Amino acid sequence: MSPTPAGEPHPLDAATMLKPIAPGTLRGHTSQAYWNFAGPYGGITAAVMLRAALESGERLGDPVSLTVNYCAAVAPGPFDISARNVRTNKSTQHWSLELSQTGQGVANTATAVFALRRPTWSHFPARRPEAGAPEDSPVVATGGMSAWLARYRFRFVGNGSAFGAGDAEAPADARSVGWMEDMPERRLDFVSLAALADAFFARIFHVRRRFFPIATISMTTYFHVSAEELAAVEAGPVLGVADGRAFTRGISDQTGELWSRGGRLLATTHQIVYYRD
Amino acid sequence: MSPTPAGEPHPLDAATMLKPIAPGTLRGHTSQAYWNFAGPYGGITAAVMLRAALESGERLGDPVSLTVNYCAAVAPGPFDISARNVRTNKSTQHWSLELSQTGQGVANTATAVFALRRPTWSHFPARRPEAGAPEDSPVVATGGMSAWLARYRFRFVGNGSAFGAGDAEAPADARSVGWMEDMPERRLDFVSLAALADAFFARIFHVRRRFFPIATISMTTYFHVSAEELAAVEAGPVLGVADGRAFTRGISDQTGELWSRGGRLLATTHQIVYYRD
Repeated sequence: MSPTPAGEPHPLDAATMLKPIAPGTLRGHTSQAYWNFAGPYGGITAAVMLRAALESGERLGDPVSLTVNYCAAVAPGPFDISARNVRTNKSTQHWSLELSQTGQGVANTATAVFALRRPTWSHFPARRPEAGAPEDSPVVATGGMSAWLARYRFRFVGNGSAFGAGDAEAPADARSVGWMEDMPERRLDFVSLAALADAFFARIFHVRRRFFPIATISMTTYFHVSAEELAAVEAGPVLGVADGRAFTRGISDQTGELWSRGGRLLATTHQIVYYRD
Repeated sequence: MSPTPAGEPHPLDAATMLKPIAPGTLRGHTSQAYWNFAGPYGGITAAVMLRAALESGERLGDPVSLTVNYCAAVAPGPFDISARNVRTNKSTQHWSLELSQTGQGVANTATAVFALRRPTWSHFPARRPEAGAPEDSPVVATGGMSAWLARYRFRFVGNGSAFGAGDAEAPADARSVGWMEDMPERRLDFVSLAALADAFFARIFHVRRRFFPIATISMTTYFHVSAEELAAVEAGPVLGVADGRAFTRGISDQTGELWSRGGRLLATTHQIVYYRD
């Protein structure tokens, strides 16, 4: 394990740091630690958009929904996020957000919904897949690839290990199960969950077992825990389950679940992905 | 079957009719034909938001993603939709939309992504569940309930028929399979698919077998067909498959699939729902 050196912010916190510069406008800066090929890792953009709403003094309750649209690559450097509280109801709050850069226009749009959680009848029909202990699954070697991959530790459970093994004769399984955790280790919060939701490898990499140019077009994440419940989740990796149902004419879908080690469904996530074969 | 009387527009087309009143602003009117308890049926709102982008002269390709947030009930009467083309790339286009009413503020926000579909390697790992012929499943009686329910014909396949049978001792299955079709009958297009995506009954109605106050907070739909492919889909009902994974502290999720009778996955949809028990 590699904890963050004393006195330094975790790279996720550094990459999502925002400074209010005007009412409803926050300034951030891209982070090389989460760099992908042509722009920041999509998960870090989702995380910083959510953080803009989370840190607003107007925040009501906890996030329940976040949709981020990837309109254009964010260029290295500063960016501004406009965070508009569109409507605050008794128990829900709606946000509209945009990330833009001087001379580049809008790179991301987002909407987020927050809600006050209340005690009610609760029910969890979904079950976490059996996955053994994280230590029983080998760590996926991602060294030398995009910088952001070093910000997570990935372990596939079961058939996900065929990932990257070369083009399959027939399409391989789109479903994967695996442990995922922040590197260096970090307690879970909504910001890190929002980022983790995009950390699944593109389904086409699993199905065809090799890499293609891909880009997330739009991602929606639903959170199924309150802030207190999330703070009580044990440290360590989460179990990620992802699948895809349709790859058609350059667009595929992806669904994902993020489970605590103890079996609590923390978040579900969906995205639509551009691919070029 | 009840076709639309000659010369009259289908209620779906009438309810989503929009008139440009200024650059980027379109005016519509709520429809009693799709009225729900406290406002319009959520699906008709999704449909009219999508139609605002679809009918823009700036439209690029076909819709691939639509997220609609339900901020407040729409009051009976006229409404305005602002439709902003945020970014047009070589093969994708991003829209931000808002529905508002004079004196009421913003009732809905939405984002939509359009894309030019290209010929590529395609693959459909998901399979349509076996459901027999639509005529083999009984029509669900929804007479006397909300007006919008008369705009669809529902037939449950298998265990969904326990729906409404009274509170179960243990939670019943959240998953349902059923045939759904516009009433009067109507050819499928993106507008009707966007509306159908919200036509699943709330999962809590299935799980607890009775009715509760519920409201969709946010819904995202992904389209897996091009306009030409959709135009070629056989007439008649689509098969809807829906499930829920977490009901917790007043918020539940719902996932859905809309399949053509012939077995093509047309759209997948996700929503987060407020419930009060």
